[in-house]
Amino acid sequence: MSKKSAGTPISQYGEFGLIDYLTKNIQHKNESTIKGVGDDAAILDYKSKQIVVTTDLLLEGIHFNLMYVPLKHLGYKAVVVNLSDVYAMNAIPKQITVSIGISSKFTVEAIDEIYQGIYLACEKYNVDLVGGDTSSSLTGLTISITAIGEVEKGKVVYRNTAKENDLICVTGRLGAAFMGLQVLEREKEVFAKNPDLQPELDHYKTLLESQLKPEARKDIIEWFAKEKIIPTSMMDISDGLSSELIHICTQSKVGCKVFEERIPIDEVTAKMASEIHIEPLVAALNGGEDYELLFTCNISNHDKLKENAAISIIGHICEQEEGINIIGRAGNIIPVKAQGWNSLMDEK
Amino acid sequence: MSKKSAGTPISQYGEFGLIDYLTKNIQHKNESTIKGVGDDAAILDYKSKQIVVTTDLLLEGIHFNLMYVPLKHLGYKAVVVNLSDVYAMNAIPKQITVSIGISSKFTVEAIDEIYQGIYLACEKYNVDLVGGDTSSSLTGLTISITAIGEVEKGKVVYRNTAKENDLICVTGRLGAAFMGLQVLEREKEVFAKNPDLQPELDHYKTLLESQLKPEARKDIIEWFAKEKIIPTSMMDISDGLSSELIHICTQSKVGCKVFEERIPIDEVTAKMASEIHIEPLVAALNGGEDYELLFTCNISNHDKLKENAAISIIGHICEQEEGINIIGRAGNIIPVKAQGWNSLMDEK
Repeated sequence: MSKKSAGTPISQYGEFGLIDYLTKNIQHKNESTIKGVGDDAAILDYKSKQIVVTTDLLLEGIHFNLMYVPLKHLGYKAVVVNLSDVYAMNAIPKQITVSIGISSKFTVEAIDEIYQGIYLACEKYNVDLVGGDTSSSLTGLTISITAIGEVEKGKVVYRNTAKENDLICVTGRLGAAFMGLQVLEREKEVFAKNPDLQPELDHYKTLLESQLKPEARKDIIEWFAKEKIIPTSMMDISDGLSSELIHICTQSKVGCKVFEERIPIDEVTAKMASEIHIEPLVAALNGGEDYELLFTCNISNHDKLKENAAISIIGHICEQEEGINIIGRAGNIIPVKAQGWNSLMDEK
Repeated sequence: MSKKSAGTPISQYGEFGLIDYLTKNIQHKNESTIKGVGDDAAILDYKSKQIVVTTDLLLEGIHFNLMYVPLKHLGYKAVVVNLSDVYAMNAIPKQITVSIGISSKFTVEAIDEIYQGIYLACEKYNVDLVGGDTSSSLTGLTISITAIGEVEKGKVVYRNTAKENDLICVTGRLGAAFMGLQVLEREKEVFAKNPDLQPELDHYKTLLESQLKPEARKDIIEWFAKEKIIPTSMMDISDGLSSELIHICTQSKVGCKVFEERIPIDEVTAKMASEIHIEPLVAALNGGEDYELLFTCNISNHDKLKENAAISIIGHICEQEEGINIIGRAGNIIPVKAQGWNSLMDEK
């Protein structure tokens, strides 16, 4: 398929033609999908399960920059960030709807690339695309995705139910997506000065993947089910660990102690951080878009949690009066401040 | 509350503050709403009912023009057009999620007006706002709404199930919303030439209401339930009667005969149409955004349908080979062409 050169103008298809073209190969994977694309609405049947619904709006120039985000990755990531919210309720995503607003500068082939990314994520996470909307836009590219999932009654995990003495855990390693964005921003500047220079990105592959093609923690939710673990509270880390710790503690009316030395940061993240003179801890606390899970668990699950290499126990919940704190390597107490992704971006 | 003058900049609240401010008064009206705004996702419980999901993306300059659409009306309409899709499945909407992208030119008061319209629609249609997203936008105003509803198994009405000899019915009167838009466009031009001239819009009040504050046909779906009528096929009229007749006939593999004289057009619509030299029939067939229902029904329901003043029987379904036709007042056969809202707009 040709990419940017000599593409097919969208007007050649018209709205209904384009939707038909983009959705013609859909095959439903889930029993709960009764009717998908092609009517006024989709019909789902969850029987006795509870329903989980979450939605996200991604706007060009705010949530993504087409200068360095390939369209296929954009489609993939747009789905994954929504699925991550469903998993964060201890639920399994089953369907998505996708609405896209596109300006006439996009060709059918370009839209097709976005959809290829969307379908790739649907395939990987076993999710059905059941509806949506494709519309022209006078301005930038807009993607709105709603994800719907199921959870057995009694297994939903909220943010506001962390209990004193619970263990605090995170999955994966933090700060990589933020550092990936720094790599891309730096390359953009280098490219602007000298367009002939080929970027050297091999060293930063894991960072770029974290930023451009993040994954949601399906594996952890499946492991919880297998091990019969139900966390006491959970959310996904989209705005940075600091911001999410504050959400869980404030909503649960508790405090926490998180130990700096236990916050998982990988080597490449630490290396890139030092290159651009940022403390790796700051990247882990305030960088966003990790899409890892932050959860609390009763201490009785300690041994099982220890066995899972993808999970780090980083601290514990305490009384609200003790505050929301990080204990530094020297035993010093660092109060956690709400900073998060957006405000960090504004400081630049 | 002050409107455009001296408003509060959105930055004063921040993302989470703004969401808190906009959602602080929500009280759930439906048993199926277990958890709304405030976590990674909403939790719903539909027990044995099937779930209906539909979504729409509204973009400034494409779907609405802030020059003549009041923000409160915009919020109201954005909800109603989604609910209309749920009703068109013979279902009852129960929840919505709302994502809004706003540029910094908007004040908190302006966003508040949009939400006032959204909440007004929620109140009127007994729907809970359970989630969403508020984000800054570099470009225009973007509103994405997903509506979720319930329907008893076996009562869903699709588009592709019209049967030969079924009656074809529409609700309300057609073309009014399109004519309302023409009034607004005309006034905009008059205003551009002479800003001191006060518009005379009283004569066109019903047209403007149809365009700016349409209603979804909750009443008809409730009447179906009361009368134990299940249409054989149904959809809402968002792109114009022509386009929707083609959808139902093509997907159901049938043809139809619709009688021109039976297509309901009200006097004010006809008057405005003649003023701007458009055939009223063209406005009814190709004008969009009526949000009335087009449905087919077994002929055994004829007497009940006749009794409902909000319903017009406009024709009947025939064999596919006979085509999709309108029978003119003189008995002439007019083949129905796919034209619809968008293409009509492009011709101007």
